[in-house]
Amino acid sequence: MSLLVVGSVALDCIETPTERRDNVLGGSAVHFSYAASFFAKSRIVGVVGEDWPTQHTDMLVGRGVDVTGLSTVKGGKTFRWSGKYHQNMNDRDTLEVHLNVLGDFNPQLPAGYRDSKFVFLGNAAPSTQLKVLEQVPNATLSVADTMDLWINIQRDELRQLLTKIDGLVLNDNEAKLLADDENLVRAGHKVLGMGPKFIVIKKGEHGAMFFSAKEKFIMPAYPTSQVVDPTGAGDSFAGGMMGYLAEQGTIEPRTLKHALAYGTVIASFNVEDFSLDRLKGLERADIDRRFSEYREMLTF
Amino acid sequence: MSLLVVGSVALDCIETPTERRDNVLGGSAVHFSYAASFFAKSRIVGVVGEDWPTQHTDMLVGRGVDVTGLSTVKGGKTFRWSGKYHQNMNDRDTLEVHLNVLGDFNPQLPAGYRDSKFVFLGNAAPSTQLKVLEQVPNATLSVADTMDLWINIQRDELRQLLTKIDGLVLNDNEAKLLADDENLVRAGHKVLGMGPKFIVIKKGEHGAMFFSAKEKFIMPAYPTSQVVDPTGAGDSFAGGMMGYLAEQGTIEPRTLKHALAYGTVIASFNVEDFSLDRLKGLERADIDRRFSEYREMLTF
Repeated sequence: MSLLVVGSVALDCIETPTERRDNVLGGSAVHFSYAASFFAKSRIVGVVGEDWPTQHTDMLVGRGVDVTGLSTVKGGKTFRWSGKYHQNMNDRDTLEVHLNVLGDFNPQLPAGYRDSKFVFLGNAAPSTQLKVLEQVPNATLSVADTMDLWINIQRDELRQLLTKIDGLVLNDNEAKLLADDENLVRAGHKVLGMGPKFIVIKKGEHGAMFFSAKEKFIMPAYPTSQVVDPTGAGDSFAGGMMGYLAEQGTIEPRTLKHALAYGTVIASFNVEDFSLDRLKGLERADIDRRFSEYREMLTF
Repeated sequence: MSLLVVGSVALDCIETPTERRDNVLGGSAVHFSYAASFFAKSRIVGVVGEDWPTQHTDMLVGRGVDVTGLSTVKGGKTFRWSGKYHQNMNDRDTLEVHLNVLGDFNPQLPAGYRDSKFVFLGNAAPSTQLKVLEQVPNATLSVADTMDLWINIQRDELRQLLTKIDGLVLNDNEAKLLADDENLVRAGHKVLGMGPKFIVIKKGEHGAMFFSAKEKFIMPAYPTSQVVDPTGAGDSFAGGMMGYLAEQGTIEPRTLKHALAYGTVIASFNVEDFSLDRLKGLERADIDRRFSEYREMLTF
């Protein structure tokens, strides 16, 4: 089934305790669509500047990504993010953000995208996410990501969004902030009470939790010994999850749980190298192999 | 099979963001033996002072605990620990430690304990743990707990201990410190290389990981909405794990994995009230019910 992602397309500068990489390919829509590409073709909506290396677009097209919705702003510069990871590789500081063309981004879906069934709204202002949602009236499943900034400055718009989407993805501290509750289980249920049918709370190296009215899943991270660059882990998690759901064409609980596990596995690969470098070396069989291993670890 | 625990017996003063309790029953041997009592009777070795309320001993005896090895020092005072939990209920500050009679504790096993098959060495100086180990020559399974203090000041003795025990239980930061590696998976394997057949890395609210030469399990914490007092969670985890193994009388991998899950479940109950208050209200059926629910959450 058709899969749509609306999100950022970025050039990242990343520092880890041992290495530094400049101008590497990043952004939520990029990590999402590449992760999803192991399962389903996706449609991307995003914006870049004239400094955008077109080989990145070619690479996405090579993965079956529909780039009709990727627009280039004349005279503009691509969104740039710089970050530095702490020794623990889980916490990071944002060093610089240049919104550039992303600052005025008002996503307009190409006509051919409006029938999209599976929709992922990458982290953006809830007011923007609401406008995108209006353009996909026939979505079977809509899932949004958010961040602390929007909880603080667009809480009303976010609350409105929550009454209209099926799923919300956010991290543990954001869930606590939004629910005003330090206990993650209670916080999860409070956010669920704000409207979405399910929420996924991301805990970085500690995995994720899933809450719906009837179900509660816990998905620890796959324990990898090679954490090189966690950037994009959350978006590749979402891409794996949504890609698998789009492939299966259903959102019944058993499939959803498999989708969360696939998301976990893809995210564990994503962190093993910079940018998309680890994912680029993978085939579906590699993902299925780790999926089986992960399942085995959790089965007793 | 016979189960032995050597550890602290304490009176704790605990502050949480909302409550404070003084002089509540605590200590590693207490949390361990009560948790284990749902599965197997244990033998306890510990020391208390004359201020020790004897009803605590009676309560343990009521749970089938053999207290022959619990000695009272005339004129001495019981070990006391005071701690304060942060808002997140995962981190804590130790406010006061009064070792009292624990300072001179040199555990001598009663003759009837020397045939013990399952042995847990609660957190203590590795030099002391080594002396206990010499007194149980026929142990089928010996597991030790440790802490950062001993890694820093008795590293040689700890390394010696690691060549003699079957299992080591320690928390994530301690594993990183001992292995000098920030990646938990690599750290786990490095500690495994120091001698023990398996190690369990405790991650507090994020659960635990298990490493042996052939197996790698991940056990997320059971998500409870009621975290009142995390004190003793690690010891009740170990008690549930070892108690179940002693009940089953085997340490083959499948049983070990079930044991880790039972430990996780007991620990999740332990944190739901102060001291042993939550465990005191439980029957085996309550534990089995949560065990099934926990397994269901992880199965896909």
